[in-house]
Amino acid sequence: MLASRSHLVTYREDAADAEIPSHRLLLRGGYIVKVGAGLYVYSPIMWRVLRKIERIVREELDRAGALEIQAPILQPVEYWQESGRLAVYKASGTMLFTKDRNGGEFGLAPTAEEIVTAFVKATVQSYRQVPLTLYQIHTKMRDEIRPRFGLLRVKEFIMKDAYSFDIDKAGMEKSYQAMKEAYFRIFSRIGLEALGVEADPGDIGGSGSMEFMIAANTGEDTILIEEGTGYAANVEKAVSRLEPPVSANDALKPLEIRDTPNIRTCEQLRDFFDGFAVERMVKTILYKLTYAEEEKYCAVLMRGNKEVNEVKLKNHFGCLAVRMLAGEEIQALTGAEMGFAGPIGLNPKFHLLADESVRGMRNVICGVNQNHKHALHANIDRDFTPKEYVDVRMAVVGDAGPIEGKPMIVKKGIEVGHIFQLGTKYSEPMQAKFLSKDGKQAVFHMGCYGVGVSRLAAAAVEQTATDQGFVWPAAIAPFHVAITCLAGKDQAAVAATDQAYRDLQGRGFDVLLDDRDLTVGVRLKDLELMGIPALVLIGKKWKESGEAEIKIRATGKTLFAKLEQLPDVLKQEGCFA
Amino acid sequence: MLASRSHLVTYREDAADAEIPSHRLLLRGGYIVKVGAGLYVYSPIMWRVLRKIERIVREELDRAGALEIQAPILQPVEYWQESGRLAVYKASGTMLFTKDRNGGEFGLAPTAEEIVTAFVKATVQSYRQVPLTLYQIHTKMRDEIRPRFGLLRVKEFIMKDAYSFDIDKAGMEKSYQAMKEAYFRIFSRIGLEALGVEADPGDIGGSGSMEFMIAANTGEDTILIEEGTGYAANVEKAVSRLEPPVSANDALKPLEIRDTPNIRTCEQLRDFFDGFAVERMVKTILYKLTYAEEEKYCAVLMRGNKEVNEVKLKNHFGCLAVRMLAGEEIQALTGAEMGFAGPIGLNPKFHLLADESVRGMRNVICGVNQNHKHALHANIDRDFTPKEYVDVRMAVVGDAGPIEGKPMIVKKGIEVGHIFQLGTKYSEPMQAKFLSKDGKQAVFHMGCYGVGVSRLAAAAVEQTATDQGFVWPAAIAPFHVAITCLAGKDQAAVAATDQAYRDLQGRGFDVLLDDRDLTVGVRLKDLELMGIPALVLIGKKWKESGEAEIKIRATGKTLFAKLEQLPDVLKQEGCFA
Repeated sequence: MLASRSHLVTYREDAADAEIPSHRLLLRGGYIVKVGAGLYVYSPIMWRVLRKIERIVREELDRAGALEIQAPILQPVEYWQESGRLAVYKASGTMLFTKDRNGGEFGLAPTAEEIVTAFVKATVQSYRQVPLTLYQIHTKMRDEIRPRFGLLRVKEFIMKDAYSFDIDKAGMEKSYQAMKEAYFRIFSRIGLEALGVEADPGDIGGSGSMEFMIAANTGEDTILIEEGTGYAANVEKAVSRLEPPVSANDALKPLEIRDTPNIRTCEQLRDFFDGFAVERMVKTILYKLTYAEEEKYCAVLMRGNKEVNEVKLKNHFGCLAVRMLAGEEIQALTGAEMGFAGPIGLNPKFHLLADESVRGMRNVICGVNQNHKHALHANIDRDFTPKEYVDVRMAVVGDAGPIEGKPMIVKKGIEVGHIFQLGTKYSEPMQAKFLSKDGKQAVFHMGCYGVGVSRLAAAAVEQTATDQGFVWPAAIAPFHVAITCLAGKDQAAVAATDQAYRDLQGRGFDVLLDDRDLTVGVRLKDLELMGIPALVLIGKKWKESGEAEIKIRATGKTLFAKLEQLPDVLKQEGCFA
Repeated sequence: MLASRSHLVTYREDAADAEIPSHRLLLRGGYIVKVGAGLYVYSPIMWRVLRKIERIVREELDRAGALEIQAPILQPVEYWQESGRLAVYKASGTMLFTKDRNGGEFGLAPTAEEIVTAFVKATVQSYRQVPLTLYQIHTKMRDEIRPRFGLLRVKEFIMKDAYSFDIDKAGMEKSYQAMKEAYFRIFSRIGLEALGVEADPGDIGGSGSMEFMIAANTGEDTILIEEGTGYAANVEKAVSRLEPPVSANDALKPLEIRDTPNIRTCEQLRDFFDGFAVERMVKTILYKLTYAEEEKYCAVLMRGNKEVNEVKLKNHFGCLAVRMLAGEEIQALTGAEMGFAGPIGLNPKFHLLADESVRGMRNVICGVNQNHKHALHANIDRDFTPKEYVDVRMAVVGDAGPIEGKPMIVKKGIEVGHIFQLGTKYSEPMQAKFLSKDGKQAVFHMGCYGVGVSRLAAAAVEQTATDQGFVWPAAIAPFHVAITCLAGKDQAAVAATDQAYRDLQGRGFDVLLDDRDLTVGVRLKDLELMGIPALVLIGKKWKESGEAEIKIRATGKTLFAKLEQLPDVLKQEGCFA
């Protein structure tokens, strides 16, 4: 392709609102142009990148036997009512809606479980027609609270979403496994190192789920890893091994109610009670649980040195939202100020849930719902009784891992894929049934599988970004190599450049010939800003020895080669895919 | 591809709401599944067809030097305010809107002139960067009053939209010409006969425009053609030559006001006045014109035997909408009942416009805005004076054509493309400027160009539909050929079928191997419903003579050939592209 006809536009300055490398670098390289908060036009070179990603995704999905379809972005809300998700998405506010002139309401696809389930319900009658995995590569929309980070948090994006339909759980697990393998192949072909991590299924729901993360310092997600054991999990979902309670074997002491004037936090209590260890205290955190039809209250008991993971809490209750109570609400519901809530004398409106970390603790300090008082040497099942023990604890770096108990390390990651075992979560309420082998009606076991296509482009930039800019992995670079003549007035050099350009194209390379009437410095700076993997320069050196200068940007290497050797040298250096 | 893994689902019954062949046949062939009014899921085989159309469109646009981008579907309304089109689209009600959680309002792209102009404004500074033609193949939305006709009138569809940017009118015309040629290549490669017709630019605006029509009896558009002259125009835009007024040379007679009790129409007047010719009368049609900020009234004078073309009227005034007045409004504004309005004694609120057909008429009958009275022998410029003469007349079949005056014929067509010379209609209000060669700021001259990708698929079905079903043009057929074994228990026949399948694939054919465990009759009926261009059957005949039976569906031919001759025979019969 000729640079003069490619609409290349680069910028020497960073945009003020660009906080992370991919946002900054994609703007500077002329890949994206902002036309609204979280809304970008993909420029011609960006579109080349996205089409290459799409192609890899499509090939791997096809290879796994999935069939491509396309479902409307406008989704009648009736389907979302049927599945029960309308309330969830209205509560989170992440879905955009529109109404037509006849009053029909439509959600703008954030995902397509409902529509694809409806399609399968309409077209599949018999077990003979499954297993069936359908996918689309299509535009999705999301009402982001605060669009930012360039292509990472946007209102509109390109996603590959797939949906599998099987007759039973075993079939679903097989389809899930096939997609998992396809996903690792996709990321590896693109040239990205992806980590499969346990994840919270969120509003999609279902039993098992795995996220695919590209490690990057600027990643929005936190991953806890127990090295050498294969365990990696999103912090939203991560579990850790507990240290046994230090007081587990102590004799029970009598309960004392002590005055604790203005002493509200565990740290204040520790100081007040002469260094009574925080991990021997039980703190009480009060929550409001919002359901579609009602609201409930819950008190979470937690070992003093641990924190609540609200995602786990929300999942445990299957409610639409959880929110910690504020001062006034606490006063109204417990009769005491914030800092004095506890399991003793608690308003029975609260469902009393204990984190697993509380099990077996003895002689603890806790609140008693009276201002300026706390209990000392309170004991479970004598002074208060939790309704249940559940893991609702936040795992943190350094916690013992669940597999071998090794201290976990932390990485930041960008989520680029997410796969889910849905079971009958959608097929059951939507009554998506088939006639089974033994002649009975049964509902499908489903899976769903997402890859962020536009997100992958940004993740690729994040993974390679340095102070010197970035370099596209060869498989998705808009051009494998750019070639330019450094001696524009030397007709022989220009002709040699043209020849090398055509030869490389003939060998299957995507080549950009920078034929623009600009100074060499400006051209080279542009090509650098664009993240092209390799530059081939033909000028003085070529005049002297017939050799082109080759800059491999990923490694920083400079090589020299005769023109006819260029294809081999570039392939050897990994600038081809 | 194996039929058993392609999710083929056909129907033996027609859907109740399917009024035209493409709707009926695409449903029966399992190509589309309805999930809402005007909303369809494209099934895997439909997606194959659409991808082939996309590919042809993309290749021809690339060949013409256009660059592919992608712009958001969510378009901030601010851009539409800037261009002045927001009011137009709100008035017509054809655009869908959504609001985000921060109150931002967005139109759901029916077209993308504004966003692409904003992109060019942001990225082009100098005349050196143009000519530039950008395109995208993307989902568009439209709030149809009454979605129907399958893929022809839908809420959501796939369109290729392109936009050209030039420094002047001559440049624009050159870009327009290049697109026009690309369009004819696209339709011809797809295998469709397209007619380029003069068209009304509608809400897109601009000076010149051409529609591309696929002739089909079920087409929604009416095209008038003066054969042998190259003249073809959408009826919305078509012009015709006028017969001179029969009274052109008569002496002026004195005006008479006659009682005409309950005589309201031209036909009634003719009978009342002893056969006074309708074409010698001037009828008066009253309209309300709606603008963004105000409403106006207009009276159209028309030769008695002609009708008003409201599209021409609306374009003449450049208003948002025109609407014929109803009885009560007429009474209130003219003082007389419907049927008595006329140019004499008319409320001056009405802008008095005469169609060109009225020019030169003498001694006419017309209304005088008094109940049960009409004027006889009224004369222009003596008894009333039109403000202007304009062609706002509907041309009809049989009218004299504008080129040589030959009677025009009529065809029905499906619009599949539309190209426009926009001039500065968008660049001027949006201030999209560049630095010209002589160092001054100037606004771009633009063109815009649309092809309905999903519409083309439906048009292809319409063009080939008969009572026996339809046949895809080879270039966009999901499979060029289907092959199946008629002797499923004969291992040698099955092996030969497999071999022929692989050989055809090796020769570049898209082949469907119908390996489904169904009766031969069911398989053949399915393949017919799917519109596959050719069927290859291997059975008894092959056993006897080693020949396969080949059915060419477009021509109805049945041929026999040795397996190794299959590729050549199929190519010869046009079943390959």
